[in-house]
Amino acid sequence: MAKVSPLAPASFPALPVIEGVRFASAAAGVRYPGRVDVMLAELAADSVIAGVFTTSATRSAPVLDCQAKLAGPASGPAAILVNSGNSNAFTGRNGEEAVDALVGQVAETLGCSPSRVFTASTGVIGEPLPHARISAKLEELKAGLDPAGIGSAARAIMTTDTFAKGSAAEIEVGGGTVRIAGIAKGSGMIAPDMATMLVYIFTDALIGQPALQALVKAQSDLTFNCITVDSDTSTSDSLIMAATGASGIDVTDSVTFNDALHGVMLDLAHQVVRDGEGATKFVEVSVHGARTNGDARRVASAIANSPLVKTAIAGEDPNWGRIVMAVGKSGAEADRDRLTIRFGDITVAENGWVAPGYSEKAGADYMKRQELLIEVDLGLAGGMATMWTCDLTHGYIQINADYRS
Amino acid sequence: MAKVSPLAPASFPALPVIEGVRFASAAAGVRYPGRVDVMLAELAADSVIAGVFTTSATRSAPVLDCQAKLAGPASGPAAILVNSGNSNAFTGRNGEEAVDALVGQVAETLGCSPSRVFTASTGVIGEPLPHARISAKLEELKAGLDPAGIGSAARAIMTTDTFAKGSAAEIEVGGGTVRIAGIAKGSGMIAPDMATMLVYIFTDALIGQPALQALVKAQSDLTFNCITVDSDTSTSDSLIMAATGASGIDVTDSVTFNDALHGVMLDLAHQVVRDGEGATKFVEVSVHGARTNGDARRVASAIANSPLVKTAIAGEDPNWGRIVMAVGKSGAEADRDRLTIRFGDITVAENGWVAPGYSEKAGADYMKRQELLIEVDLGLAGGMATMWTCDLTHGYIQINADYRS
Repeated sequence: MAKVSPLAPASFPALPVIEGVRFASAAAGVRYPGRVDVMLAELAADSVIAGVFTTSATRSAPVLDCQAKLAGPASGPAAILVNSGNSNAFTGRNGEEAVDALVGQVAETLGCSPSRVFTASTGVIGEPLPHARISAKLEELKAGLDPAGIGSAARAIMTTDTFAKGSAAEIEVGGGTVRIAGIAKGSGMIAPDMATMLVYIFTDALIGQPALQALVKAQSDLTFNCITVDSDTSTSDSLIMAATGASGIDVTDSVTFNDALHGVMLDLAHQVVRDGEGATKFVEVSVHGARTNGDARRVASAIANSPLVKTAIAGEDPNWGRIVMAVGKSGAEADRDRLTIRFGDITVAENGWVAPGYSEKAGADYMKRQELLIEVDLGLAGGMATMWTCDLTHGYIQINADYRS
Repeated sequence: MAKVSPLAPASFPALPVIEGVRFASAAAGVRYPGRVDVMLAELAADSVIAGVFTTSATRSAPVLDCQAKLAGPASGPAAILVNSGNSNAFTGRNGEEAVDALVGQVAETLGCSPSRVFTASTGVIGEPLPHARISAKLEELKAGLDPAGIGSAARAIMTTDTFAKGSAAEIEVGGGTVRIAGIAKGSGMIAPDMATMLVYIFTDALIGQPALQALVKAQSDLTFNCITVDSDTSTSDSLIMAATGASGIDVTDSVTFNDALHGVMLDLAHQVVRDGEGATKFVEVSVHGARTNGDARRVASAIANSPLVKTAIAGEDPNWGRIVMAVGKSGAEADRDRLTIRFGDITVAENGWVAPGYSEKAGADYMKRQELLIEVDLGLAGGMATMWTCDLTHGYIQINADYRS
C-alpha cells in the first residue's frame, strides 16, 4: 500500500447520521481477496436522486444505466451499489448484462424497483465484472445495513486512494436542522486504470428532483469540475446525491442549503486533489481580469494542466516564465503588457516584465510551502475562474508507469 | 550535459551546400561563457523568405518582429540571426529594443535592409537579452561566413537538445538539381524554460513568396504541428524557410519539390520528438475512421498528450484501457462498439471489448520495442490524422523539476 498523501487531512471527519439512509460494506473478492470492495446504500421510500456523470464518449455500462434512470419517478425505496476493483468499462455486451443482473438482485433483496437501483464500478477496465461474487454478498450486506456505516462505505470504494474522503454539514434552515454527509474516492481526475472519481452525498432535506438536479449540476461546475490532477478523464466518473426528505424541511431555493452543499462538495473535491497521485503540493490557480469567465477558465486550466508548470512546482522553482507560457497557449485573449502574476502576496510579473520589487529569493521561499496560490490578473475585463491542482512528481510516474505490470 | 537520447539518429547527416547561403557561429556568452550560442545565416540578394510561428498570445519580441516582416518585398540580401541562452520573451519594452538594436547592426554589418533581417532567441525568459554581447561578435561572424557552416549553426541553436538536428534532400526537377537543407532545435513542443522549437530550412529553388509561404504552412500542419512532447507551447517557436533561387529552377507547383520538403520537415519533426525530454520511446499515433479529419486529430492529440497513456508506454505496459479513456475524453464522436485498437499488427480491442485473439503477453512483448505504432479505427467515416510523440518518464520530471534551481 502507498503511504498516505502528505496533503491528507489529519483524520476522517465525524459524519452525521442521515435519517433515511443505511450503509453496509463487504469483501466480495472482486479483484483482491479479503479487501472490502463493495458498498450498499439503502435509501428510504421516495428519496429524490440527482447525479452528474463523466462526459466521456466511452462511458461505462453502469454510468449509462444511471443516466437513463435519473429522470424516473421518485417512488418507493432506492439503493446505490458500488464496487471497486473492476470498472466494468469497455466490456461490451457483458457490461450491460452485469449491470442488469446486479440491479435485479439488489431490487429483489431490498424490495425496491430496479429503476431505483443505481450502480457504479471502479477499477481495472476491459475485464468482465465477476458480478456473481457481488450478488453472493447481497444478503450479508442487507443484514449489515447500518445508519452509521458511512465511514466503512467510504473505505470500500477506495482504489489507489491513500485516505478515505468524507465531509459533512449541519445547518439550521426552515425552522429545523438539515444534515448533509458525503463521501468520495479519487486520486486524480483519473487515477491508474481509470480508478475514477466517485462521489455520494446524502441529505435528509426535502427537495424535488429537478431542483436537486439543478443544484448538484451547478455546484459540480464550481467544485469537482474545477479540479485536475493530470487532465485525463475517466469513463466512470459519477456523483450521486440522494435526499431522503426525512427532516421534513423543504430546502428548495434555500441559499443556506446551497452554501452548505457547496462547502461539502468543495471539501471533497479538494480532498481528491490532496490525494492526487504523487502530489506533494496543493495549488490554487485563481484567474481574474479576463475578457469572459470562459477565457478565465481556459487560462486557469492551461496553467493547472501544464506539465512544465506542475514540474516546476514539484521542484519548488518559482519559474513564472512557465505561467506566462501557459497563459499564452491557453487560447484566451491576453495582452502581455497588462498581465500580472502573483505567488500568494508576492507580485512576480507585471506590465509585461518581471515586477520591479520581485526577488527570486522571495519566490523560491514561497515555493517551499505545501499550499500555494498562483494568481493571474489578465487586466482586460471582469472574467474570473479558480481551479485546484497538485504538482507533477516522480511519484506520479512511479504509480502510473508500473500499475498493471 | 545530459547524455544523448537513446532515440537519436546514429550521426548528424551530411547536408549539401545551398548556393546563396553562408553560415557562421560564435560564442557570445549570452548565458554561459565559452558556449557557441549565436548563428548567423546570410542569404543571397532577392532570396524569398517564408515562415510560420507560435500561436501563443504571449509571443516573444523576435517572433512579432519576424511576423511583421514576412510579407515585405524580397529585394536585396537577407539574414537570419539566432541566439540560444535567452529567449527575449516577456521582457517588456526592452525586448523590442533589443530586437531593433540587433536588426540594425546586422543590416549595417552585412549591407542589407533591416526589413530583411530575421531574428530568433531561445532560452531563459523574463531576463533582458544582453544584446551587446551578440553585437560585439558580428564582425567575427561576418568574417567566418562559410557555405559549409550549417552543421555548426545547428549546434549553436541547441539548448537542452541532446543532439543536433539536420535533414536534407536533393531532387531532380525541371531539368536540373534542387537542394534543400534544414536544421532544427527542440526537445519537446516546448523544452525547459520554453527552450522552444526553432527550424531553418534553405533551398536553392526558385519560387515566389506567396507560393513558398503556402507550401511551408501546409507542410508545417502535416509535420511540426503533428508532434507533441508535453502539450506545452512555446512563446518563441519559429520556422523560417529561405529560397535563394540560385539553381534557377522554378519549383512553383512542383509535386516533387513539395514531397521533398515534406520529407525534410517530417524528418526534422521526428528528430525533435526523438530528443523529447526524458524520451525512451518514439510513438506514432494513427487514427482513422473518424467522422472528420478534425475529429481524428482530436483523438490523436488526446492519446498523444495523455499523461496516463504516456506513463503506461514508459512502463512498457500494454494498457489499452487508457487508449479507450483518451478516445472517450477527446470530444470527438466515438462509438464504443465500433472502436478498434491495434498495437502495430496486433489487434487489441474491437467491437466494444478486448479482441478475442489478443493475449496480454503479445501486447507486453510489443511494448518492449523502442518504436511503437498505436492505431485507432473509430469505424465511423473516413477522417484520419497521425501524430508523433514520446513517453513520459522520470527523466522528464528530473529535467523539468530542477532546471532553474
